[in-house]
Amino acid sequence: MENREVFVYIVISIFRSLQFLFWRFRPRYNDVTSALTRPLTSAASYDFKFMSYMVNKAKSVNKALEEAVPLREPELKIREAMRYTLLSDGKRVRPMLCLAACELVGGQESTAMSAACAIEMLHASSLILDDLPCMDNDSLRRGKPTNHIVFGESIAILASQALIALAVQKTTSSTFADVPPERILKTVQEMVKAVEGLVAGQQADLAGEAVMGAIMGGGSDEEIERLRSYARCIGLMFQVVDDVLDVTKSSEELGKTAGKDLIAGKLTYPRLMGVEKSKEYAERLNIEAREHLLGFDIDKVAPLVSLADYIVNRQN
Amino acid sequence: MENREVFVYIVISIFRSLQFLFWRFRPRYNDVTSALTRPLTSAASYDFKFMSYMVNKAKSVNKALEEAVPLREPELKIREAMRYTLLSDGKRVRPMLCLAACELVGGQESTAMSAACAIEMLHASSLILDDLPCMDNDSLRRGKPTNHIVFGESIAILASQALIALAVQKTTSSTFADVPPERILKTVQEMVKAVEGLVAGQQADLAGEAVMGAIMGGGSDEEIERLRSYARCIGLMFQVVDDVLDVTKSSEELGKTAGKDLIAGKLTYPRLMGVEKSKEYAERLNIEAREHLLGFDIDKVAPLVSLADYIVNRQN
Repeated sequence: MENREVFVYIVISIFRSLQFLFWRFRPRYNDVTSALTRPLTSAASYDFKFMSYMVNKAKSVNKALEEAVPLREPELKIREAMRYTLLSDGKRVRPMLCLAACELVGGQESTAMSAACAIEMLHASSLILDDLPCMDNDSLRRGKPTNHIVFGESIAILASQALIALAVQKTTSSTFADVPPERILKTVQEMVKAVEGLVAGQQADLAGEAVMGAIMGGGSDEEIERLRSYARCIGLMFQVVDDVLDVTKSSEELGKTAGKDLIAGKLTYPRLMGVEKSKEYAERLNIEAREHLLGFDIDKVAPLVSLADYIVNRQN
Repeated sequence: MENREVFVYIVISIFRSLQFLFWRFRPRYNDVTSALTRPLTSAASYDFKFMSYMVNKAKSVNKALEEAVPLREPELKIREAMRYTLLSDGKRVRPMLCLAACELVGGQESTAMSAACAIEMLHASSLILDDLPCMDNDSLRRGKPTNHIVFGESIAILASQALIALAVQKTTSSTFADVPPERILKTVQEMVKAVEGLVAGQQADLAGEAVMGAIMGGGSDEEIERLRSYARCIGLMFQVVDDVLDVTKSSEELGKTAGKDLIAGKLTYPRLMGVEKSKEYAERLNIEAREHLLGFDIDKVAPLVSLADYIVNRQN
């Protein structure tokens, strides 16, 4: 058996040498690219000031949303209901993804802002419906009474419809930013896919968000498809992490009822493959997400790399 | 007092002469234009074969709708629910208006067909919502159980959302007909206005329908605005006639519950101005609607003139 051990040792050595050679002569870009291949650590250790980037983007989005559904006198109940869910606190991860994708392909923040707002409107619209008595029958969302509890079911449903209309209106009226109509049409088509996804119950797909930003920013077909692949990875990762948090954290830590999936008997990743394997799967998805970003402008890729880290490391 | 009588006689004579002169030297187009100014009679007396035109348009629309939401195996419940309301019998007056407006400004039927389908989808979407328990709580529509009665509330609401998404998708994907993207964007914007109108409870505004067809067909801004004015007149007329029928016809004649507005204490035209004055108002709106059509291509204006007649003369 000694021969076999020697053989195994040689094979391992060759493998390690190859690994070293690949690593030694890996394509060099700069610090941010090395971050793309460096071991996954928490978002906090990342050079790029992601948290302040995210806060800034959230501020811009909130301002644009506030302007999109202005407070008027006399205020219509439907309008109030739209504002209630749309302008409630949120991390604005979705619009951030849209804006970052737009900037990555060379666009300005303002170019994709209308699409970013539209994305939040669609999201708010789906939240309102999800909470209805005939759906999930939730009376609280992020510690606040849900829309139909405050405004009644009929206003809530109409507000949800009106938010979709406003999302389409917002996107199609973005000609002010000199975006060619072809791009706007393509963006609307992606938006429609997102609505269809929401209707079919696909919660975590973030592909539409990234793709809409990339289209508005004038990305090439290849760039758009790479961002779609990236966003699919982080969307799936988001879902895996969400499932893990549901079984590993307390309600206090999550800010929402923990163990809900378990009680509902939902088919989750931890149930399918166990908690540890689920965590590994999330890490693998993060690596895959990064791979889809290789080759993009190094200076602009940082927000999307950090966003993936942020999602995989989030604790609630 | 004899002098005064003579004076009145002279004034009347001058007026009559002027009337005759205006009539004698009125601008001459051809038979259809004279129809625009001829006294209002029933649609049946009208040369143009309107009923067969309407049936043909309804057939085209039904075929396009059937293709837009094809029956698939396995059939999703939401899809079934969408088809249930969308493909149920209807006069297809709305899409007809869209197609006729498109043809009036020089477009083909196929050019506006996607917009016509979108219009029916939005209409179906609003019907589903209107019937919900938290809205009008209707369990019957045109003698058939309403959508939520058949499919349940949550599927009905999702089908309603999906129909809006499909309407947007249908319109934005109509590039096959070589319609420039600018027109499509403009059409989508009109569509959004229509959804906002539906949400705000404006039932009878048909302006969006005509305008969407005119935009797709490549109408000038002036033509589009004239068709908008025409459609506003017939929309209002539709409402007035509807109110009159509610108080003058039996439930059997109407095919729906008569006197419903009266019981609900709704502010209707007959209540506001009496039945006779309401009928006169409808006739005046018909004349005004025709006036907005003067100057359009005579051969193509017939369907819209007939449609107005049809609406004012309808008995249920």
